[in-house]
Amino acid sequence: MTEAFPVDSVGLVKPFVERFDEPLVLSGGDSLPSFELMVETYGELNADASNAVLICHALSGSHHAAGKYHVEDRKPGWWDLIIGPGKPIDTDRFYVVSLNNLGGCDGSTGPSAINPATGRPWGPDFPQVQVSDWVRSQKRLAERLGIDRWAAVVGGSLGGMQALQWAVDYPEAVAHCIVLASAPGLTAQNIAFNEIARHAIVSDPEWSQGHYQMAGKIPARGLALARMVGHLTYMSADGMSDRFGRELREGSFERDGNAEVVFQVESYLRYQGSQFSTRFDANTYVLMTRALDYFDIAQRFDGDLTATMAATQAQFLVLSFSSDWRFSPARSREIVDAALAAGRPVTYAEIETDEGHDAFLLDVPGYVPLLKAYMSRVGSNDHEAQGH
Amino acid sequence: MTEAFPVDSVGLVKPFVERFDEPLVLSGGDSLPSFELMVETYGELNADASNAVLICHALSGSHHAAGKYHVEDRKPGWWDLIIGPGKPIDTDRFYVVSLNNLGGCDGSTGPSAINPATGRPWGPDFPQVQVSDWVRSQKRLAERLGIDRWAAVVGGSLGGMQALQWAVDYPEAVAHCIVLASAPGLTAQNIAFNEIARHAIVSDPEWSQGHYQMAGKIPARGLALARMVGHLTYMSADGMSDRFGRELREGSFERDGNAEVVFQVESYLRYQGSQFSTRFDANTYVLMTRALDYFDIAQRFDGDLTATMAATQAQFLVLSFSSDWRFSPARSREIVDAALAAGRPVTYAEIETDEGHDAFLLDVPGYVPLLKAYMSRVGSNDHEAQGH
Repeated sequence: MTEAFPVDSVGLVKPFVERFDEPLVLSGGDSLPSFELMVETYGELNADASNAVLICHALSGSHHAAGKYHVEDRKPGWWDLIIGPGKPIDTDRFYVVSLNNLGGCDGSTGPSAINPATGRPWGPDFPQVQVSDWVRSQKRLAERLGIDRWAAVVGGSLGGMQALQWAVDYPEAVAHCIVLASAPGLTAQNIAFNEIARHAIVSDPEWSQGHYQMAGKIPARGLALARMVGHLTYMSADGMSDRFGRELREGSFERDGNAEVVFQVESYLRYQGSQFSTRFDANTYVLMTRALDYFDIAQRFDGDLTATMAATQAQFLVLSFSSDWRFSPARSREIVDAALAAGRPVTYAEIETDEGHDAFLLDVPGYVPLLKAYMSRVGSNDHEAQGH
Repeated sequence: MTEAFPVDSVGLVKPFVERFDEPLVLSGGDSLPSFELMVETYGELNADASNAVLICHALSGSHHAAGKYHVEDRKPGWWDLIIGPGKPIDTDRFYVVSLNNLGGCDGSTGPSAINPATGRPWGPDFPQVQVSDWVRSQKRLAERLGIDRWAAVVGGSLGGMQALQWAVDYPEAVAHCIVLASAPGLTAQNIAFNEIARHAIVSDPEWSQGHYQMAGKIPARGLALARMVGHLTYMSADGMSDRFGRELREGSFERDGNAEVVFQVESYLRYQGSQFSTRFDANTYVLMTRALDYFDIAQRFDGDLTATMAATQAQFLVLSFSSDWRFSPARSREIVDAALAAGRPVTYAEIETDEGHDAFLLDVPGYVPLLKAYMSRVGSNDHEAQGH
């Protein structure tokens, strides 16, 4: 830690690669002969390996959840608000593990990696990974790091779905399951938004049937458009009104009939789309949105969410955000109601905010202290609670 | 009328063109030297021209609101549910006027028309038309048809905005103003959705900077995507869940990791997009969404909606639909509250339905009878009410 970092920062961090040579059979039937995961950890694993917390990332996240790689980095990891000494996920107490998911584009094996069978990038032929596959790959990572049981598995949005899947697939390996701004599965409307995003990508001629990497192209326009659609669903209507209203970037309606009149909100969205298209991989975006669409936590239990939750042994914290219309509070309550019906211990809160789905990444009033209060209990009484 | 038509149909109809040779100065400052409007009428104008009803269309509508052009037409006009003998807008009583708006692509002067100054299609150089310009062009049409005062001006969505603008710009020319599923102006979220639709169109390489017509191209992929975005905002989340749920078109998640798994909702949206792209003009879509964005009924009154409504003399019917999140009931209530504050006569109802914004085009319970009951009073007591 240098003086350049605040005392509650994990400071400089360094990612590392873990390689797994045993084939991973995927839910869709395909198999990956081997794979690599890009990983970061913060804090120290204790002697009995009982203080490990797994961070699961959302659609566009990565392993870089906290700290910086260089002192001069403009921004820290994506969840630096939550992870650090004295923060809700307190690195003075916990050993925090964060990884880039399989199929990602930040160093883990994914579409841009070389397919050993062909010697060329996988591209669109990279097998579709589902949430349960991520969880199985994360289980291997846990074994590699000497972790039998997580003190907590934590995630927002698609990350929350992984946390839920952990609790269902490996009940004994999860003490606390923390699910933020998430849902037991996608609605038709959710799927429709993802489909539009994918359609934008595959409609871009540079897409080249997904082989853009081999063709030396980048479907940047399609990817930018996909991100604009996604980003719009992360914000609430009220939040957007407060932030942008009907303000123009410049000019007026009267100036000239043909001069482009641009509202602030348009210029903001264009910027978000264009930034994203320079840093994210289009095949990964398609794969991740598909993983979202396919996710259905109750699938193995014929759609019975209560039976699903009855199979878990974790204690649950479920948080939703009032203005989140992507995964609304009603979807979180489905999880909570099923947990209660199944007799599982669950804590639930709906945080009042205008920040929409993005709120789980932001310092909205009431959220961080609540998560901190919950996490302060994690690890202290878990042995008694196990199998509760 | 032939036996092929039900008794409450207007039967076979025929559109006609009205040409206007006096220049129209547009709100943006540009001017159209002359223009044509494609028009349909149903019913007969009475002796004192007091039974005329103007239908204003929404984003993708046209002049063809009722009846058929040929007996074998698969579908009648877009509002055949509402217009006809004995229907809410009763052609036994009313003379109904319906037109394609200026800038449209169904026969009225628009981007695909020839620019007399260049001898080539206007394309993207067609001047931006605003809602108040449409109203002024419709006023000319009214004069041409011998109508000083409309018994009613009626519209849904963007059509409702034109009805409102009529009541503000020509207070003495509107007896009843009927505003369905509309709003006093767009929110930042509304504008953002329109911007994404436009961005999809202009990102299509076939767009050719808007000169696709000259280039012999059609930005069909961009237009399809734009329509998918729009269409998604017309449906409610619950309505989509009821209609599509998470049903697959065929196959299963387990079948094959790389085979495309398509949800019903995806296949539906793709179809809607692809159909639209064969019948609509991309420059018109851009122009119409811009007209939506720029609309602000209170602009001339410095944003004071009550002062705006105080300038009207019409009686108002405002209807909203509970699951409409594009122009939510709250937006309709803004109009109603301002009308009440201004002492204007206004009737308001929120129709309970899962059909979202599209509901004003559909036979949802409670809607058609309510509109019919209101319309039965139109024309009977309007002279007493004038200037009320």
